[in-house]
Amino acid sequence: MAEQSRLDAVTTLAQHRGFVFPAGDIYGGTRSAWDYGPLGVELKENIKRQWWKTFVMGRGDVVGLDSAIILPTPVWEASGHVKVFSDPLTESLITHKRYRADHLFEAYEEKHGHPPVNGLADIPDPEHPDKVGQWTEIKAFSGLMKTYLGVVDDQTGLHYLRPETAQGIFTNFANVLQTARKKPPFGIGQIGKAFRNEITPGNFIFRTREFEQMELEFFVEPGTDDEWMETWMDISWQWFIDLGIDPQNIRRFEHPAEKLSHYSKRTVDIEYRFGFAGGEFGELMGVANRTDFDLKTHAEASGKDLSFFDQNKNERYIPYVIEPSFGLTRALMAFLVDAYDEEEVPNAKGGVDKRTVLRLDPRLAPVKAAVLPLSRNEALSPIAREVAEDLRRDWNVDFDDSGAIGRRYRRQDEIGTPFCVTVDFDSLDDRAVTVRERDTMKQERIPLEGLHAYLAERLRGA
Amino acid sequence: MAEQSRLDAVTTLAQHRGFVFPAGDIYGGTRSAWDYGPLGVELKENIKRQWWKTFVMGRGDVVGLDSAIILPTPVWEASGHVKVFSDPLTESLITHKRYRADHLFEAYEEKHGHPPVNGLADIPDPEHPDKVGQWTEIKAFSGLMKTYLGVVDDQTGLHYLRPETAQGIFTNFANVLQTARKKPPFGIGQIGKAFRNEITPGNFIFRTREFEQMELEFFVEPGTDDEWMETWMDISWQWFIDLGIDPQNIRRFEHPAEKLSHYSKRTVDIEYRFGFAGGEFGELMGVANRTDFDLKTHAEASGKDLSFFDQNKNERYIPYVIEPSFGLTRALMAFLVDAYDEEEVPNAKGGVDKRTVLRLDPRLAPVKAAVLPLSRNEALSPIAREVAEDLRRDWNVDFDDSGAIGRRYRRQDEIGTPFCVTVDFDSLDDRAVTVRERDTMKQERIPLEGLHAYLAERLRGA
Repeated sequence: MAEQSRLDAVTTLAQHRGFVFPAGDIYGGTRSAWDYGPLGVELKENIKRQWWKTFVMGRGDVVGLDSAIILPTPVWEASGHVKVFSDPLTESLITHKRYRADHLFEAYEEKHGHPPVNGLADIPDPEHPDKVGQWTEIKAFSGLMKTYLGVVDDQTGLHYLRPETAQGIFTNFANVLQTARKKPPFGIGQIGKAFRNEITPGNFIFRTREFEQMELEFFVEPGTDDEWMETWMDISWQWFIDLGIDPQNIRRFEHPAEKLSHYSKRTVDIEYRFGFAGGEFGELMGVANRTDFDLKTHAEASGKDLSFFDQNKNERYIPYVIEPSFGLTRALMAFLVDAYDEEEVPNAKGGVDKRTVLRLDPRLAPVKAAVLPLSRNEALSPIAREVAEDLRRDWNVDFDDSGAIGRRYRRQDEIGTPFCVTVDFDSLDDRAVTVRERDTMKQERIPLEGLHAYLAERLRGA
Repeated sequence: MAEQSRLDAVTTLAQHRGFVFPAGDIYGGTRSAWDYGPLGVELKENIKRQWWKTFVMGRGDVVGLDSAIILPTPVWEASGHVKVFSDPLTESLITHKRYRADHLFEAYEEKHGHPPVNGLADIPDPEHPDKVGQWTEIKAFSGLMKTYLGVVDDQTGLHYLRPETAQGIFTNFANVLQTARKKPPFGIGQIGKAFRNEITPGNFIFRTREFEQMELEFFVEPGTDDEWMETWMDISWQWFIDLGIDPQNIRRFEHPAEKLSHYSKRTVDIEYRFGFAGGEFGELMGVANRTDFDLKTHAEASGKDLSFFDQNKNERYIPYVIEPSFGLTRALMAFLVDAYDEEEVPNAKGGVDKRTVLRLDPRLAPVKAAVLPLSRNEALSPIAREVAEDLRRDWNVDFDDSGAIGRRYRRQDEIGTPFCVTVDFDSLDDRAVTVRERDTMKQERIPLEGLHAYLAERLRGA
């Protein structure tokens, strides 16, 4: 199916089945942030756990961290965010809507094949293409969100919400060196919320003002940074593939040298084919070579020594940093889009039915198994509830005794549940159940006493 | 050992071993928030997972949710937070420090046995006990933290950081009813950050401006609320006991009727004996009967129908809400304090050594097993690293080949690691390792091929 309609179908499914709701829905919602419903929160947690396993827990050379969202203001002054984390903004004199000037310039260049010679004076109002050059002066607009701590709203109380989790890692570099007995090459990983005052949030959960990141700062000896950059690009790419993303749907994007962030020597993104109108691909994650920029600036600003002394080489250096940085909610959106499938399957009447199925990796699936008594019945209910209770000790499990079994299967297919466990009247005699696998729809009779082990084997690593 | 010194010992250990660091440490830190280091983040995640298992995933009548931190402002207007979530504040005319007036009154009453007859006029400056009545007028001070979304800092952009996760649940009540096919009695659980502009943060991680909550809103038919209140009080109490808290160290505190929050019919806290100077016990969690206050006010303010129609009884009602609300970082602090132990153990020389041991439940322990090659050696290293790699597929595992084995055992005891796996020269021949259990210090020889299963059995549920 076409990408655009697949994206629409996923967006609808996600809201309809309780993956994602607009934040503050009953008050009209907002594009700034989204709420994750019963299925969304499980899927999100599963992605976090898989990331933690691959990038932190599963490695001997990485440890975890969870730093505060509101850090002391000198952190953001030293990092450069207070000064340079801003967008060039201009306001239309006609509609009084605000636009990012660089976006207007890019759109102009794309259309005309060259940049606007006279700057804003050449650029039409997007809503009034015949009116050109009706703009206010360009002003820098900070992407940092402010808040005030303490009892008065003045400069002394001014604080910022973090726009990235990375800085909390840099400020703890020396603490971790000291307490975790690590030395370069080693990394510190973190998962958590970040906040950016985006001018144009949109594209469902793709660009929001409140979002979640999964970031690893990997500290290496200068000179080995280019090689480690390649390593982390490969591991990052492989992580998506291992969890089921079709390699046809992702690509690398190398940032041109003149557009690199102030701290970066090289940045390469992984982009996913979301199928947005007006730009098919969107950024999923980026690997940046942040050099020694961050540790150096924090060392200078704080007066603390953030260098590392290599005893073997009898040499002191400030490590370079390779940073694989993932957008959690973007990854979630990509896993949903990639898993979405519609197919025609033969039905009992000799015709065909449309089946919607989320082919999520079982490790990511929000519900691992659904227990379905064949009918709502006094004999079947107790045994079915017992089965569900037992499975719930280890997994998120659904219980559904409403309506036709076929419809219940479809409902589970639609949310990506890998296994349906049907309890029928034979179960009372043979103490066995029917397990149906999502993708093949194959059914297998499994003795009750072996059910837990049967699923455990197939849900390994979940 | 005395509670106060135990608290001090835990606070020191936590910072020394990388559980908790001051946020923005290199810039002097802050009392507003703390960063969680490599061990702290694992412990915190383990507590979250256990809570989720008991209160959400393990139950057929509860589903999860993850709502945004910054919700549309009408949510906080309807909930009453914009209006009543404030503290009475006064400033000392001598030191210009600000104090909560109600705290000054309570301290006065405790000392004198009666409230101050003339109000603030009777109350001395805490830093100048001879100077009485030198105070500004009492002003209401909002505990909500503000921020601004969008491109201008004015009223239209004014938003609040959530002071509790609960409201994101209430605003999604109808969404969840519709998509998750639940009906009362059922609950929605959530874990996440909340922010309160506390005037006097302090007591290590006990009172901070940025903190984490684990909250369940359980929706019940009016009339059944008192009974459900008891049920959730029991489950909450039992959760702490099951995870190893000594029942001697927790107690219930019933809020007096005249001090209940604006939404509450009854509130009962569980307090832990932290051993604070000036007030031994501190609140760990509270169960509140929020009645139909929240759903009713949101229904009125939003114009949406937040009632439930009971088809069996042919009856429509707005559910009552029982809310068990846990402070995550407070729970973490209680688990640490309760697990902390010092004992004397015989050493190899016939004398005694002091042993510090964190008797954390294995499910909570940040490191599940440490792999310790007897010495740093070319023959032992490869096999030890192989063992560590294998265990890391499922657990957070430490690898330590530095210094004397006895000291390495002590280091693992101090952070609560339940199992130490020692690889020695015999391992090369018998393909077996020595597993030492933390609490008993008993050692057992286990074949390499059975090691994973041996630990899996003992780490069940972790």
